[in-house]
Order: sequence, then C-alpha cells, then structure tokens
Amino acid sequence: MNRSELVNSIKEKRSFLCVGLDPDLDKLPPHLLNSNDPIFEFNRQIIDATKDYCVAYKPNIAFYECYGIDGWKALQKTIDYIPKSHFTIADGKRGDIGNTSRYYAKTFFEQLHFDSVTVAPYMGEDSVRPFLEFEGKWAIILALTSNKGANDFQFSQLEKEQKPLFEKVLDKCMEWGTADNLMFVTGATRPKDLGHIRDLVPEHFLLIPGVGAQGGDLQEVAEQAFNKDCGMLVNSSRGIIYASAGADFAEKAGDAARQLQQQMEAFLKEKSFI
Amino acid sequence: MNRSELVNSIKEKRSFLCVGLDPDLDKLPPHLLNSNDPIFEFNRQIIDATKDYCVAYKPNIAFYECYGIDGWKALQKTIDYIPKSHFTIADGKRGDIGNTSRYYAKTFFEQLHFDSVTVAPYMGEDSVRPFLEFEGKWAIILALTSNKGANDFQFSQLEKEQKPLFEKVLDKCMEWGTADNLMFVTGATRPKDLGHIRDLVPEHFLLIPGVGAQGGDLQEVAEQAFNKDCGMLVNSSRGIIYASAGADFAEKAGDAARQLQQQMEAFLKEKSFI
Repeated sequence: MNRSELVNSIKEKRSFLCVGLDPDLDKLPPHLLNSNDPIFEFNRQIIDATKDYCVAYKPNIAFYECYGIDGWKALQKTIDYIPKSHFTIADGKRGDIGNTSRYYAKTFFEQLHFDSVTVAPYMGEDSVRPFLEFEGKWAIILALTSNKGANDFQFSQLEKEQKPLFEKVLDKCMEWGTADNLMFVTGATRPKDLGHIRDLVPEHFLLIPGVGAQGGDLQEVAEQAFNKDCGMLVNSSRGIIYASAGADFAEKAGDAARQLQQQMEAFLKEKSFI
Repeated sequence: MNRSELVNSIKEKRSFLCVGLDPDLDKLPPHLLNSNDPIFEFNRQIIDATKDYCVAYKPNIAFYECYGIDGWKALQKTIDYIPKSHFTIADGKRGDIGNTSRYYAKTFFEQLHFDSVTVAPYMGEDSVRPFLEFEGKWAIILALTSNKGANDFQFSQLEKEQKPLFEKVLDKCMEWGTADNLMFVTGATRPKDLGHIRDLVPEHFLLIPGVGAQGGDLQEVAEQAFNKDCGMLVNSSRGIIYASAGADFAEKAGDAARQLQQQMEAFLKEKSFI
C-alpha cells in the first residue's frame, strides 16, 4: 500500500487507528481454547469486529513465534484474512547485517505479504536499507519507543551532533529512505518529544504505540503528531483485544475500537482533514 | 549449558569455533534440492561434518523464517539434531518492550530449547531483562557489530559518559546480567576495539562473527579477546558452509572447520589453556 492509498483510507475510515494483534493463549477467552486454531479464531473475530474502525493491523510477531509452527500458521492465516483495504505491519523489530536483513525483508514482504516491518536501527545503514528496497513496502524504524528502557540509550546526548541518539536515528534514516517508504516508531508515552519529532520529520508517517495499556493520551498525541497527511497511525493492542476476557470479547473489542475511532474522527474534523 | 560446561567443552574440543547455520536455497548444492527437506538435509550433513571441530552452532533465524512454515520446521529439526554437547545460539537479534521480549525468550528457550539468543539493545533494560531470567540460558547482546553500519550509531560519542554508545551498552548490560548469563556480540572486523572491549568486560564471553567472508583475522582476534576462560566463541558461517557448492560440500565444510579448529588448538596451547 502506498502513501496516498493510506491517506485515502484514513479519510474514508475517518480513523488513523492501528489494532495490535498480540494473541496470548493465557489471556484468550476460555471458550476459544477448544477451537482448532484458537489464535486465528481470536484474530478472526477481532478483525471482523474492528475492521470498520481501523486502517491498519499490527501482529506482533513474538506472539506467534512463541507457539512454533502452530503460531506461524496462525500468522499466515491472519495476514491472509486481513482485508486488503487495511495497511499491515509485521511488528518484528528485525535488523541484522545487510545479507541477513534482506532475508527478513523477504520473509515479511514476499512470504507473508505484509506492507511493512518494524526495524531496529542499532546496526546502521546496511541493516536498514534492505527493507527499503521493495516496491510499495515500508520500513518502520524504532526511533523513540514507548517503554521505560527507552531512557537507557535513546536519549543519550551525542557529543558531536549535540542531540540525543534517537534524533540521529531520525536524521540518518531520512538519508536512506523517503516519506514514501519509511515511517518511525515514536511512543505515545512521550507527547512532548512527539511534537519535537514531528518538527524534525515533517513528512513521515509515525507509528505511535503506547495509547491505552501503556498510558498515552490520544488527544494529546494526535495534536503533536498531526501533519498534512494526518501522518500517524496510533496503535492500541491490549486496550482493544482484551477489552473483555469473556464470550463478548469481540463485541467489546469493537466497542473499544469504535470509541477510539470516534475520538479520531472528531479530531480529524477539528483539523478540517475530513 | 552453563559457563563451566562451555569452558570444559572448549578444552575438550580444543576449539572455540561456532558454526553459523545460514542455509540459503540459492546457494545449496543442487543435488540437495530434490530431497524432502533441503534445508535440514544441508544442515544435517554440515553438522555431521563439523561437530568434532566446533563447540557451538548458530542458526541465523532469518534464513529459516524466510521459508515460512517449512523453514520453521527445518529449524526445529536442526536444533533437535545438534548434539546436546554443543552450545546453541538463536541468532535472531530480537528485542521489544518487556512484555514482548518475554515471548521471544519463551520462543527460543522453551519452544526451541536454544541455549542463547542474540538481542538488540536499542530499547533498553526492559527489552533485555526477560532474556536473562531463564535458568541456564544466555542473552548475547549486540555491542559492536561486524558490519559497515556499525559506524552509524555504535561509535557515536556520548557527551555525558565520554565514551561511544557501544561502551554504554556494555556498561548498562553488565548492570543487568552477569558473566554467567550474558555475552556480547563483538565483530572480528575490528580487532583493536576487541582488545579494548576485553579490558572493559574481562569476564564475559564474546561472540565474534566476521572471521572469514567478512574479513576478520582469527589469530589477531583471538589475541585480543582471550581471557582465563578462553572467553570467546568465534563464528564462521559462509566460510564453512559454502566452502564448496558441489556434492562434496559437507567434506569441504569439515575441512574448513578443521582448519580453523587446528589454528584454535595451536592458539590455546600457546596460551597454556590446554
């Protein structure tokens, strides 16, 4: 999916919501555990219940890999089931020497047909570039993450550049990719930094996790990150998919997604984007 | 496998060689492509031919994931086939928020029974710690990698700490783990930095890729990285597994591994380690 298609989808859906598909057998409604493929069955019902309210789905690869071949099969079925109208993000935080990153890119772009992959920048240019070399596909680079550990390295002030590490990551990645094949992960738990990041990367889409379970505030985040294309995908995982642990999990997930969509719609109207 | 078992294995084998199992269907000897499971068949023959000369195997996960379910099955069969006497490294360069890193750790430690996983440090403490919480298992953190892209961020000088980023990674990780559950990836392509790293982390094992195809020199590397436990696993992937592209690939892989083992044995004798 290219940028203008994504922007159109945001306008049509009146939403910039991404639903994180992080299925955890320990948290799944008990009645699903008897189905043939509980993970896929859970995802299928979540997708059915939320697809009208979101523009993107983000399966977190760890939650599939940990179930081995069964998990991998559920991931394939899930990506096949997500409507083609929705942007898909393989949240794998991959990155290795160039020769190897190319194989990760092939995995998620050619084997599983995702639109994008999240990529860890620590290994630098040759670890990132292979993800930028697939027509119509995207690399979503970790810049400033939503977790506490972001404080350990990402904010480290660099002597020569006179800026924190995450800003150098933004600068360097902008040399390697464009607003048409590169997005950045920027945590919702740091709205002030988000505004600053928007100034530094005015064109690029931002993938913003951390709304909901991690504590980020949607309105505040949207104010900071909005640009002429909307320019953001705000992700909620646990707040939607585990809104209820009972037989009504899908209905409640739909409610939670609709609630966020309505806030997003109001925001987009306020900004005269729709 | 714990540290003293690993050290004993190095003494017994007179080797600190790790063989990288990065099977690539495009590079596999053509006669294998007709077998039921070419990737596993390749690995099986490579393992048979090299197991007397190495102490560890390191499957690079990208080379399995990219073949989907078939690749995952081949990975499971490979890890089951590797003799229990050998240390195993899941080279996946994983790392995510704590909740997610835990699932990656479960994947490689509980689902696939690897001894260790390589971990990317960019997301900080909560992304690393889950890998340190499994009895008898290891996290191998990217410190200074062997690729060109290492120059982009890893050498960035930090203002407050007055040291490059990779040194802060070493410092921080040593607060989180010990020489019994934590190793560091330090590229063989930078022998001088390797000596410096050894001074900074005198006790820890180093996983050293980059000998062979990437250009690192074994003798030079070993001189810099040696400690009282030997303290290093030197990895070669392409130099061994693709020593020949013909029907004699396993024999030639064995030759290449034996050659490195002999150099290692001479080195260990010189150091009176054996």
